[in-house]
Amino acid sequence: MLLMIAHDSLLPENEVEIQYFNNLGKESRNVFLNVVHNKEGPAMSKSTINTWIWYVVLVLALLSAIGAADALRRPPFPRPFKAFRHNSVTKVQQARSKLDDAYKWETRWYEQILDHFSSRNTTFNQKYLFADQHWAGPEKQAPIFLYCGNEGNIEWFAENSGFIWDIAPRYGALLVFPEHRYYGGSMPYGSQEAAYKDVDSLAYLNSEQALADFVTLITDLKRNLSAEASPVVLFGGSYGGMLAAWMRLKYPHIAIGALSSSAPILQFEDVASPYNFADTVTKNFRSASESCYRTIKASWDAIRSLGATREGLQKLSSQFHLCNDLQDSSELADWTSAAYDYSSMVNYPYPADFLQELPAFPIKEMCNAMGPFPEEEVLPRIFAAMNLYYNYSGKLECFDIHDDPHGLSGWDWQCCTEMVMPLSYSNTSLYPPYDWKFENFAEWCQSTYGVKPRSHWIVEQYGGSNIESVLKRFGSNIVFSNGLVDPWSGGGVLTNISSSIVALVTTEGAHHIDLRSVNTKLDPQWLVDQRSAELAAIDKWLREFQADWARGRAEVL
Amino acid sequence: MLLMIAHDSLLPENEVEIQYFNNLGKESRNVFLNVVHNKEGPAMSKSTINTWIWYVVLVLALLSAIGAADALRRPPFPRPFKAFRHNSVTKVQQARSKLDDAYKWETRWYEQILDHFSSRNTTFNQKYLFADQHWAGPEKQAPIFLYCGNEGNIEWFAENSGFIWDIAPRYGALLVFPEHRYYGGSMPYGSQEAAYKDVDSLAYLNSEQALADFVTLITDLKRNLSAEASPVVLFGGSYGGMLAAWMRLKYPHIAIGALSSSAPILQFEDVASPYNFADTVTKNFRSASESCYRTIKASWDAIRSLGATREGLQKLSSQFHLCNDLQDSSELADWTSAAYDYSSMVNYPYPADFLQELPAFPIKEMCNAMGPFPEEEVLPRIFAAMNLYYNYSGKLECFDIHDDPHGLSGWDWQCCTEMVMPLSYSNTSLYPPYDWKFENFAEWCQSTYGVKPRSHWIVEQYGGSNIESVLKRFGSNIVFSNGLVDPWSGGGVLTNISSSIVALVTTEGAHHIDLRSVNTKLDPQWLVDQRSAELAAIDKWLREFQADWARGRAEVL
Repeated sequence: MLLMIAHDSLLPENEVEIQYFNNLGKESRNVFLNVVHNKEGPAMSKSTINTWIWYVVLVLALLSAIGAADALRRPPFPRPFKAFRHNSVTKVQQARSKLDDAYKWETRWYEQILDHFSSRNTTFNQKYLFADQHWAGPEKQAPIFLYCGNEGNIEWFAENSGFIWDIAPRYGALLVFPEHRYYGGSMPYGSQEAAYKDVDSLAYLNSEQALADFVTLITDLKRNLSAEASPVVLFGGSYGGMLAAWMRLKYPHIAIGALSSSAPILQFEDVASPYNFADTVTKNFRSASESCYRTIKASWDAIRSLGATREGLQKLSSQFHLCNDLQDSSELADWTSAAYDYSSMVNYPYPADFLQELPAFPIKEMCNAMGPFPEEEVLPRIFAAMNLYYNYSGKLECFDIHDDPHGLSGWDWQCCTEMVMPLSYSNTSLYPPYDWKFENFAEWCQSTYGVKPRSHWIVEQYGGSNIESVLKRFGSNIVFSNGLVDPWSGGGVLTNISSSIVALVTTEGAHHIDLRSVNTKLDPQWLVDQRSAELAAIDKWLREFQADWARGRAEVL
Repeated sequence: MLLMIAHDSLLPENEVEIQYFNNLGKESRNVFLNVVHNKEGPAMSKSTINTWIWYVVLVLALLSAIGAADALRRPPFPRPFKAFRHNSVTKVQQARSKLDDAYKWETRWYEQILDHFSSRNTTFNQKYLFADQHWAGPEKQAPIFLYCGNEGNIEWFAENSGFIWDIAPRYGALLVFPEHRYYGGSMPYGSQEAAYKDVDSLAYLNSEQALADFVTLITDLKRNLSAEASPVVLFGGSYGGMLAAWMRLKYPHIAIGALSSSAPILQFEDVASPYNFADTVTKNFRSASESCYRTIKASWDAIRSLGATREGLQKLSSQFHLCNDLQDSSELADWTSAAYDYSSMVNYPYPADFLQELPAFPIKEMCNAMGPFPEEEVLPRIFAAMNLYYNYSGKLECFDIHDDPHGLSGWDWQCCTEMVMPLSYSNTSLYPPYDWKFENFAEWCQSTYGVKPRSHWIVEQYGGSNIESVLKRFGSNIVFSNGLVDPWSGGGVLTNISSSIVALVTTEGAHHIDLRSVNTKLDPQWLVDQRSAELAAIDKWLREFQADWARGRAEVL
């Protein structure tokens, strides 16, 4: 769990100075902790160090919860989102203060059916954000933009989907951001504890129920607003992008089109290659620096061999400025690998604060951070990269790599039931070779949640195999946007399927960068072009809808 | 419940002779019971009367289960199917003996997931019929024809869908008929009693779960047959036709097209007019005979006024040769109205034994049966029509209009949860005027099943409103076939939506006549033409699938 702890103590006085700080001493170490951000941001004054708030950042909850991690190593998806749900209140408050008035919303609650596919009447309160300041109203059939909430606090997605806010005035659009059930404040059974209690309480956390939530919520909302004739356009990024695409496919009568950004709807068994994700991360780091790649590739053995003894583990813990000693070297391996995965996802061309505060092109910066150390000093180089990634703000004194081991994770539950996305590592990947095996994964799910994953279900439910021929003559109005820097792009739709189910692929794009707000100074031209294409698609959907509607009216009258 | 009872007794000796048999006596009465079928079938010898088997035929379970029936009168859909599930074993045995070898199937069972939309692992055994005698096999990518089982024994649908058997050799098709959950032998929890026990046990009886059953079953079956590359074509009539169309829309990756016959997918609130059904029944009877229409229209008051007293009820019971005395005149009204509804559905141009044994054009015959009586003799005329409809075989000695009052009906449950199909009667309809009210219906559902119907859910889930504009640019490969004699046609898709979502409408067609086996002697030309158009559509779907597949392969290689 991501915690914010006001911590008064310094590092333990008896701390073992690590190898590459041997000559620097403690003072130097704190300087080092700030050295990278000093390039682009103000250093914190030393006087405030003792009262720093400890940001405890992204960790691999799944892996930390189990002992023998190797068999189960999985790249995170979308761990970043998951992690943020825990600190959302503060995070959102911070963020809100930075946002201008255009981002104003009203937080509303909807009494939602818990199980749409049985006849039980149980309900829960689903949160949604409602922003009508730009809406031209139902009498003009002004559109409704619906963002399909992902696995986290909806406020966070609303704030990181600035593009939707940017274009709302152009379309006179109403914005609606429903939160995904079992995340944020939208907890069945009244609380997260109750909702995450056991197999029975978690039973209704899945994509089908979430889509049905969006359907009933928007239908009721339209009815209440007398806006039945207002077309709905769907937006979503990552898992939310998958939901947007699937919602358009399953509920074409509810929404006229979907912008599905960085949605790996093909990253399932027997569809996309399980090696895609790691291959992309690898390519990103090799492109930044072959030396950087070699260091990371060598780090796994270095971490493992040093961590083979208790003394070595202590040394590693100290060397990496961990707040708590490692129990197993795999904890450190997982923590570092997450940084490579995430930096690939958010390798944006400008500084951003999506997963956490980072400079422009963080991969390049992480590799640059290794620069001061010769290549044979593997672990110092890795630490330098970690310090860049996890501590770009320069505010941390030590790293807490542990999630709350008792916290159940909604996304892990989803992975253990229907979102079974195999991810393997080839011999040449950044990571140690690893072949994903359903049996191992299923075993873990059984022991953790008492459920057996349905590895084929998503593809049966939503399709994916031979998607080109299936959708070539079926369906319409979906834009799949992907950036090839994003490791999830390998599981995305990367070629046009028909004249209106199209792929927008950018070579340099990262994870749903197109949904971020327009940055007039720093947006590269390819991003400007991509967004123009997206607007053109939405324009066309709305134009056709209006024409068809008018024709339908004319026939009725 | 439909029962077959071997009965040794004659009618009670103290039977009250009814008004219009006053001059005939008992002997004449038995002759009358046979008079209609004598026109076209052999009369039973009187010596066998004492050991007649009493067929107890279609009744209105819903209405018989409640006292004040008026507020809840609903035309049956598809009560005929429901009723047949109870006597299916005998029915099927009879039918099988008449069928030639082409109808041979293997009965199989599939371990099916009870709740596809939660993570529970409970399963049940789903029955399906498997017929591969015509299949050209997976190596030829020969197609699979899947009939979407309706609310009843699957054998009965298999036998009454002869068209699919007829065309199997032409396509070298494998035939698969999965049974709908909670019907026939496909009972969760091991038995019908357990499955129909209460709200919790019935919770998974709905269309979404049924579609997911078909999806998982056919996917697993294809995998086991190494037939992943064999395209699936869907068939279905009535509710099964709705499932076929919805399955093509929701699961285009599972099936390449659907022949959806007589499927009233628009007969839901705020979509099609609730008056359609009764208006069509009315039109059918008026077309056959205005006098016939007037008699039926007058019968409601006649039944009600005579049935207002206990003596009158006894008189009615006797007059209509009911096996048990009426408790309320509405029971008789419902029983007679069912005959008008059903005869409209099965007004086929040749003798058939679908709902029960009937002559060609049963509406005309029912009206003809009134002929011997002057128009003012309303009830004798009605009885003559009932005797034609319910006793064309001439085997009945009395009519049992009561369903098992303790038997829960799967279809009624479905209507009380999601299949909320409002049906009203206008002033000029055959029936007394009646305005369907959700509140009344909901009240009944609450008191009967303890559930509140979701009146908007089906349209939210599957669409329906503005279907032309929604599907004009979305989806493909559905043939909606409807005959305008069928009262359900008013809730069907009657106009072409796109080049591949088309409507085949026949003026004289009844309820999914196109799915019946080819009758080379008696099929009218319009039916021959209709089926040709259906074959042409299926040809096109298969041709396009093969071309797309080959192109996909070529791209991969």
